[in-house]
Amino acid sequence: MYKVFGDMLSGNCYKIKLLMQFLDIKHQWHPIDILRGETHTDQFKRMNPNTRIPVLQLADHEYLWESNAILNYLAEGTEFLPSNKYERAKVLQWQFFEQYSHEPYIATARYINKYLGLPKDREAEYYGKQTGGYKALSVMEDHLSQNRFFVGNHATIADISLYAYTHVANEGGFDLFTYQHIQRWFEDFESISGYIEMSRDNS
Amino acid sequence: MYKVFGDMLSGNCYKIKLLMQFLDIKHQWHPIDILRGETHTDQFKRMNPNTRIPVLQLADHEYLWESNAILNYLAEGTEFLPSNKYERAKVLQWQFFEQYSHEPYIATARYINKYLGLPKDREAEYYGKQTGGYKALSVMEDHLSQNRFFVGNHATIADISLYAYTHVANEGGFDLFTYQHIQRWFEDFESISGYIEMSRDNS
Ligand SMILES: N[C@@H](CCC(=O)N[C@@H](CS)C(=O)NCC(=O)O)C(=O)O
Ligand SMILES: N[C@@H](CCC(=O)N[C@@H](CS)C(=O)NCC(=O)O)C(=O)O
Repeated sequence: MYKVFGDMLSGNCYKIKLLMQFLDIKHQWHPIDILRGETHTDQFKRMNPNTRIPVLQLADHEYLWESNAILNYLAEGTEFLPSNKYERAKVLQWQFFEQYSHEPYIATARYINKYLGLPKDREAEYYGKQTGGYKALSVMEDHLSQNRFFVGNHATIADISLYAYTHVANEGGFDLFTYQHIQRWFEDFESISGYIEMSRDNS
Repeated sequence: MYKVFGDMLSGNCYKIKLLMQFLDIKHQWHPIDILRGETHTDQFKRMNPNTRIPVLQLADHEYLWESNAILNYLAEGTEFLPSNKYERAKVLQWQFFEQYSHEPYIATARYINKYLGLPKDREAEYYGKQTGGYKALSVMEDHLSQNRFFVGNHATIADISLYAYTHVANEGGFDLFTYQHIQRWFEDFESISGYIEMSRDNS
């Protein structure tokens, strides 16, 4: 059975949980507390030398890390990953967008605020995340004004990747009130069968 | 014929050039000057609303952006992208590692230094990139001490993604002298047939 090492309040880990729920994939969830340094033990580094969650264990000594790589692995052959070559590339395009232009702003601002309690010495960094975060949100809003989901006309792992931190962007200080298409997309996404909320109780 | 909008001195664009050389893919190269704001015109935003190069034009009104998504698209069915599901996921793992844990340190430090000439008001940011950059390099060095390439025993697009900025890391202030396995990997990579240097003359 798959093992997932992660924290359900981390959007990157929640992505994996969501897909496993949608696809009804059996797994064991192993909670990891990053604030207690649990990604920096020798044992953890043998799973992921880059000291980050989530990690998926496939078999003895077989590990996969990077949330979006794990999603691609698990979604292969399902409706959450198109088989058409151009559409697959578009899924990846949005996932790389998420990791490069979205997560470092929206997830990091949320981390500083929610996990660390917005300490004085990180305030400048926190407020510095606003411009990049809103830029990513407006790229999404424009796209969703013309498209129901990110690629094709049903949800794919691109939506999972972008939903994970967007739906809690308020916890990083982002106001989504005027982003009506994003709000509509939240509703469509949350009605997918198997949807589960981001809560440690749901791990 | 494919059109590529990019700058050969940008590692993200150079990735595309390298793969096209290795696979002998015909294309036209359209130089884009980011310092002159050429990614912020209305015309450019219709190709990539996220205002970044590289962009691949596949057909009229059909564009793909995000360097690593473009690589996956072009490499499909070739020796640069394995067909095995686990190996493909490992390629993506290293590509997401590159975009999240490597490029934002090594490429950004190089950009501040080489493109902008290390202006006083970005010195703190520049020096702040050292820790993250060296961490990424040491994850690579460890992996390459046990493996000839990143995935499997010949080069894949994971190697292309990581080679692009690693081989010019010195331009961002990173000293690779003690990274012997990375140096060995450079040599193996540079002997791939079709290899081309990162130079605007080679666009
Ligand atoms: N690009 C990675 C990012 C993962 C990541 O940064 N995880 C955080 C928690 S959300 C972490 O493990 N941080 C621990 C650390 O940096 O020590 C992915 O998508 O999986
Ligand atoms: N994640 C993107 C990053 C692309 C990127 O940041 N490109 C830079 C040049 S290396 C750019 O176009 N910058 C222009 C701008 O930000 O306005 C990719 O891999 O393609």
